[in-house]
Amino acid sequence: MRSEARELGQPTGVQEAPAWQRHHLLDLDELTPREIELVLDTAEAMREVLSREVPRVPALRGVTVVNLFYEPSTRTRASFELAAKALGADVVNIAAEQSSVRKGESLLDTVRTIEALGAQVLVLRHWQSGAPYLAARHSRLHVVNAGDGWHAHPTQALLDIYTLRRHLGDLRGRKVVIVGDIAHSRVARSNAWGLTALGARVVLCGPPTLLPPALRPGEDEAAALPPLQVETDLAQAMEGADAVMALRLQRERMEGGLLPSLREYIRLYQVNGQRLARARPGALVLHPGPMNEGIEIAPEVAHSAQSVIQEQVTNGVAVRMAVLYLLTGGKA
Amino acid sequence: MRSEARELGQPTGVQEAPAWQRHHLLDLDELTPREIELVLDTAEAMREVLSREVPRVPALRGVTVVNLFYEPSTRTRASFELAAKALGADVVNIAAEQSSVRKGESLLDTVRTIEALGAQVLVLRHWQSGAPYLAARHSRLHVVNAGDGWHAHPTQALLDIYTLRRHLGDLRGRKVVIVGDIAHSRVARSNAWGLTALGARVVLCGPPTLLPPALRPGEDEAAALPPLQVETDLAQAMEGADAVMALRLQRERMEGGLLPSLREYIRLYQVNGQRLARARPGALVLHPGPMNEGIEIAPEVAHSAQSVIQEQVTNGVAVRMAVLYLLTGGKA
Amino acid sequence: MRSEARELGQPTGVQEAPAWQRHHLLDLDELTPREIELVLDTAEAMREVLSREVPRVPALRGVTVVNLFYEPSTRTRASFELAAKALGADVVNIAAEQSSVRKGESLLDTVRTIEALGAQVLVLRHWQSGAPYLAARHSRLHVVNAGDGWHAHPTQALLDIYTLRRHLGDLRGRKVVIVGDIAHSRVARSNAWGLTALGARVVLCGPPTLLPPALRPGEDEAAALPPLQVETDLAQAMEGADAVMALRLQRERMEGGLLPSLREYIRLYQVNGQRLARARPGALVLHPGPMNEGIEIAPEVAHSAQSVIQEQVTNGVAVRMAVLYLLTGGKA
Repeated sequence: MRSEARELGQPTGVQEAPAWQRHHLLDLDELTPREIELVLDTAEAMREVLSREVPRVPALRGVTVVNLFYEPSTRTRASFELAAKALGADVVNIAAEQSSVRKGESLLDTVRTIEALGAQVLVLRHWQSGAPYLAARHSRLHVVNAGDGWHAHPTQALLDIYTLRRHLGDLRGRKVVIVGDIAHSRVARSNAWGLTALGARVVLCGPPTLLPPALRPGEDEAAALPPLQVETDLAQAMEGADAVMALRLQRERMEGGLLPSLREYIRLYQVNGQRLARARPGALVLHPGPMNEGIEIAPEVAHSAQSVIQEQVTNGVAVRMAVLYLLTGGKA
Repeated sequence: MRSEARELGQPTGVQEAPAWQRHHLLDLDELTPREIELVLDTAEAMREVLSREVPRVPALRGVTVVNLFYEPSTRTRASFELAAKALGADVVNIAAEQSSVRKGESLLDTVRTIEALGAQVLVLRHWQSGAPYLAARHSRLHVVNAGDGWHAHPTQALLDIYTLRRHLGDLRGRKVVIVGDIAHSRVARSNAWGLTALGARVVLCGPPTLLPPALRPGEDEAAALPPLQVETDLAQAMEGADAVMALRLQRERMEGGLLPSLREYIRLYQVNGQRLARARPGALVLHPGPMNEGIEIAPEVAHSAQSVIQEQVTNGVAVRMAVLYLLTGGKA
Repeated sequence: MRSEARELGQPTGVQEAPAWQRHHLLDLDELTPREIELVLDTAEAMREVLSREVPRVPALRGVTVVNLFYEPSTRTRASFELAAKALGADVVNIAAEQSSVRKGESLLDTVRTIEALGAQVLVLRHWQSGAPYLAARHSRLHVVNAGDGWHAHPTQALLDIYTLRRHLGDLRGRKVVIVGDIAHSRVARSNAWGLTALGARVVLCGPPTLLPPALRPGEDEAAALPPLQVETDLAQAMEGADAVMALRLQRERMEGGLLPSLREYIRLYQVNGQRLARARPGALVLHPGPMNEGIEIAPEVAHSAQSVIQEQVTNGVAVRMAVLYLLTGGKA
């Protein structure tokens, strides 16, 4: 998928060019550190816009953004919708979960139709990994991957990284622990790429059955992940961490036999106060939401002073404004 | 629930202060007569806006209103959406009926997310009584109760009262009959509070099985309702009435065994021409909609010159504009 | 239905009057050739608007358009939504598929509510033929038929005709072949009326079981269709055609026993390269979408240089802008 993405023919922002040159945002594995930083800096400017009395700028006036969601979503869809409206764009929501699928229309037909309707930006969530790459290859729309299967969720990772940078400053050498169902997490994958690009040390932690096969102890197959550290013992992983991100545990994993019991999971992998105490003082706590409080994260940690979980949501709007602005900027 | 609401710590508009001081609109039992009148007077100004060539004012420009609906609704959701747009606000609709619930996210998580996304106003409909109070207590959003369980529907009551006042003037001493399934009606409850606050005489009428337990003949338990008159004979209740409001009969009540038969209900409690004739000449006919014509209301009454049912819908937009305007007014 | 529509009492644009006089757009059978041309010319102006840097005009500022859809739709609903927004109108979407129906509210109640809410335009799709006529007769809303049962889909036909006129110029004497399930196609019916009004020769082609009963060979009952040619042999029908429109094959037709097999249908009625070769060189290929590629149309034809299928979608926005503009023009 990565090499495919790289063949899309979008000019890669060269190190010295300050301007954004990409046509799509599909995953962070294709962005240079400079490009990631450009998004973060632009998000900083957008945060200032959002703090104004009237938090709106007409930068995308006349631009149509279509949110095409093949999976249910409240927060990501609403976040993109608010980001687009704050920039003065028009937004059309299409919940493709059932009706269109029932009619048998293919993703590509739908994407081509959206392009022909005059939209400029397609925000696409799809249960199938790679769907946004397909959309990007077959249309002139700016495609933003809003989550594809287990593969990638780049705007979530960018908002996580933005939130970390606001609190920690330069991320080089910082230790970030991601705990949970790594194997099925598009959030973990995109964060792994983005964080390592900025020089952070990423530690992935979870039960062996929920680690990607290539990362399981004893395996050495080339994984579609940057070099990073894997740890099945959470207490060990937390040692000296600057931040810990708990992933949402999908309950259906248990039915699939990948987890012996919820109780076992909680006992070994819940981010709780005792484990957090092994991290550096004031270490940040993140979660992509929605949380299962009491399962992957203890309530007292979720709502502690170290938690930046609410701030992640707020920053998400600024980061998505930055992405929409940069992608269309050349034209608007 | 009432005492809970009163503990929310919002400054109660003192009698002499003309300005609106409340942060939420949860039910009418907490509003003073002055506050109710301030909403009605503001609605009058909004009705003037709606009569203009371009019926829009930018009073809420930059404000985001989220409609979060846990029950299906067409008219209430659309009414709030139009009211917000007429004031220049941005609107995001979230139909939480299934998808979010399936994902297991709690109401409070969703509310906190909406706040963190940068919204200022939450319009909440929920099947559970008290849900908006919970939302109000745990966020800084302005919460508008758009109907919670069997408990309250304050904007519906305000638009009913506004409609009555436009036709009858001062409501002191006016007799308003509310007929139907009182026990399960949030509309009846909120109207009872609002109308009695303005000095009207409210008569609740319905079969004993559809009256709140505390109001059934022979009971004397303290009910969460203001002092009012109960009548199981509709002809009696209509005597000299200035207005009658027929409530929608929920057909599922019959399945629950609370009604012997639809035929029986129609025979005894339908608002028809013969019964309306016992009211004062020109007495007004109201209905919160959607109507079951031929059941709780006869078609010839629903579409008579005395019916203000369509006008209620129109006034609803003005009243909701007033509510949104007053709640956010201090900030906009 | 036609005679019913003609009784609606809207002044019919007389031949010499250049201005649009109609209150609704229900079907093309009631439009004069001059009126159809006025829509097409207005669409031309709207296409220019859409080509601007900021493709927006405030012609409908303050107007509310409600999309009320009783059938699922992605492209038609989005097309109307974008058209309305491009003109500065506010749009409210109501998907009435399930919830409102469950609540038992009648179409007329819903329509009257939408009118009372202050909307000016109702874009209505309904599974029942004639529903928009009912809505038009009982409200002061401008009603646009966005597809009713098997009856009519006038804006689809207008965008088809607009697309044909852009490529072919004057349509008098031009041969247009419509292939597929004619009996159940609102698109075919509306096109038949519109194209014959402008002087084109329309040939309807399909298996006898999928032709309207009145058009089957040997029948002579007066059909609710203009005089046109029927052909069950596609090769014959294509002879010298200027354009061919393939209709979507509804798979549920097969279950109803109207089609022996999909394979048989493809063998006899698929628009493929070999059949297209019998038409005039450069003959246009149209499809209302969404396509079943490989069934009613061969992929190499759908994506050939002769295909204007994507352009139809683009033109649809301009045509719908024209319709919304003309209908409300007197007031805006």
